[in-house]
Amino acid sequence: MSYARQMLDTYPRTLNVDVGMLAAAIDALSDCAQACNADNAADLGEPDVTEMARCIRLCLDCVDVCTATAGVISRQVEYDAGLTRPLLEACVAICRSCGDECERHAHMQHCRVCAEACRRCERACRELLDALK
Amino acid sequence: MSYARQMLDTYPRTLNVDVGMLAAAIDALSDCAQACNADNAADLGEPDVTEMARCIRLCLDCVDVCTATAGVISRQVEYDAGLTRPLLEACVAICRSCGDECERHAHMQHCRVCAEACRRCERACRELLDALK
Amino acid sequence: MSYARQMLDTYPRTLNVDVGMLAAAIDALSDCAQACNADNAADLGEPDVTEMARCIRLCLDCVDVCTATAGVISRQVEYDAGLTRPLLEACVAICRSCGDECERHAHMQHCRVCAEACRRCERACRELLDALK
Amino acid sequence: MSYARQMLDTYPRTLNVDVGMLAAAIDALSDCAQACNADNAADLGEPDVTEMARCIRLCLDCVDVCTATAGVISRQVEYDAGLTRPLLEACVAICRSCGDECERHAHMQHCRVCAEACRRCERACRELLDALK
Repeated sequence: MSYARQMLDTYPRTLNVDVGMLAAAIDALSDCAQACNADNAADLGEPDVTEMARCIRLCLDCVDVCTATAGVISRQVEYDAGLTRPLLEACVAICRSCGDECERHAHMQHCRVCAEACRRCERACRELLDALK
Repeated sequence: MSYARQMLDTYPRTLNVDVGMLAAAIDALSDCAQACNADNAADLGEPDVTEMARCIRLCLDCVDVCTATAGVISRQVEYDAGLTRPLLEACVAICRSCGDECERHAHMQHCRVCAEACRRCERACRELLDALK
Repeated sequence: MSYARQMLDTYPRTLNVDVGMLAAAIDALSDCAQACNADNAADLGEPDVTEMARCIRLCLDCVDVCTATAGVISRQVEYDAGLTRPLLEACVAICRSCGDECERHAHMQHCRVCAEACRRCERACRELLDALK
Repeated sequence: MSYARQMLDTYPRTLNVDVGMLAAAIDALSDCAQACNADNAADLGEPDVTEMARCIRLCLDCVDVCTATAGVISRQVEYDAGLTRPLLEACVAICRSCGDECERHAHMQHCRVCAEACRRCERACRELLDALK
């Protein structure tokens, strides 16, 4: 069981969603940030980095947005739709763009793994968004 | 002239907005993150921290969202509305909530200064959003 | 297998340490940041937040330092002792302080879980430091 | 006057250094993170990105370390040498490496500006380190 899940079991929230779904989103966001950081590093080591410039840029955006969102939803004791909804929408958007770009060069194993992390994170954020409606 | 402005003058972008407005937003986002980090530290040093819990939480959200947004819009060589718009909307929302909360205890000088940084950032993000329409 | 480990298997580095040890450090750093973010949120929800002020401050430092270190060591294709060593030392120091503070109020379950994440991260960073000597 | 300076004037600390020096370090760290974020984006837009790979990597490390350090020293109400010293040493190291690399291609204006931000941040962190001895 991840720390996110263990922690969510220890204190009350008014963010009225299933604790398993919330923990899954936090885990997917952390994992996606980790994968994008690593993919980025791997892209920078490729023989033709110019070819990877867009992938690097999207991975960097994905790290920034996923890290911020993980922080914010970990703190959402009190639900603030005005903040949480657009933030999750931004996550869905960047995970999709970054996942698409990584899939375009899935012949590189690091991009294939990263695409998978982005897809999983996109799905988890979308599910949380739907549950918050 | 801030580094953001000096840098934006040195390379081309397709993010079709006035360079001065973009630099003002990046500066306001950095300043707001700095102010919220400091306000947070000051809140934790108050005699009654329980009273400040909401303010601390909102300042932390504000640091996370502003830092991520500054990174993303610094990298927006290619404009991605699906990402940039909700991210700026999330910024506007958290800067408003955090600014309102800080204003509620503006008798503490650190909260008064922080409220001002939040208001300025909210305005800069709103202007950028309007320009991107 | 974590994304960090899967990714490290896909590209060459000159950071001359066992890939399992490096992946374990990256995972422990991510987990610790996640646990400290959550503990922080839980502390802010306690009836007496004043009592938790030091814990909150240390958790915030721990999130910042662990997140930065995870990013840096994910990118260490080329080993830079001048950067990596003091950064890992800073991690060891904050994980110890934060772990000690969390243990002081281990009667709160969220602090007990967080202390465990800090201890594991301190150990993983220390092992990596020793291996880099 | 920067927000860092305005805020530091509003609350007591035991970090026994001149408030002007502390504010200068926080400002230099924020500015350096901003410049490195922008330089990074500019590098990714150069015709030959492969040539810029090392610069990109160092800029990313510099953003991560400077952002974390700005957060930590903003919160240093209580001085913790075990954390602050190695963290500032890590900053000095990455600012020097990143500044050197940027200077190597100072014919690109964005790298020249970034080198200047790195030099200024290296100096500010070194001065703070000396004052903390």
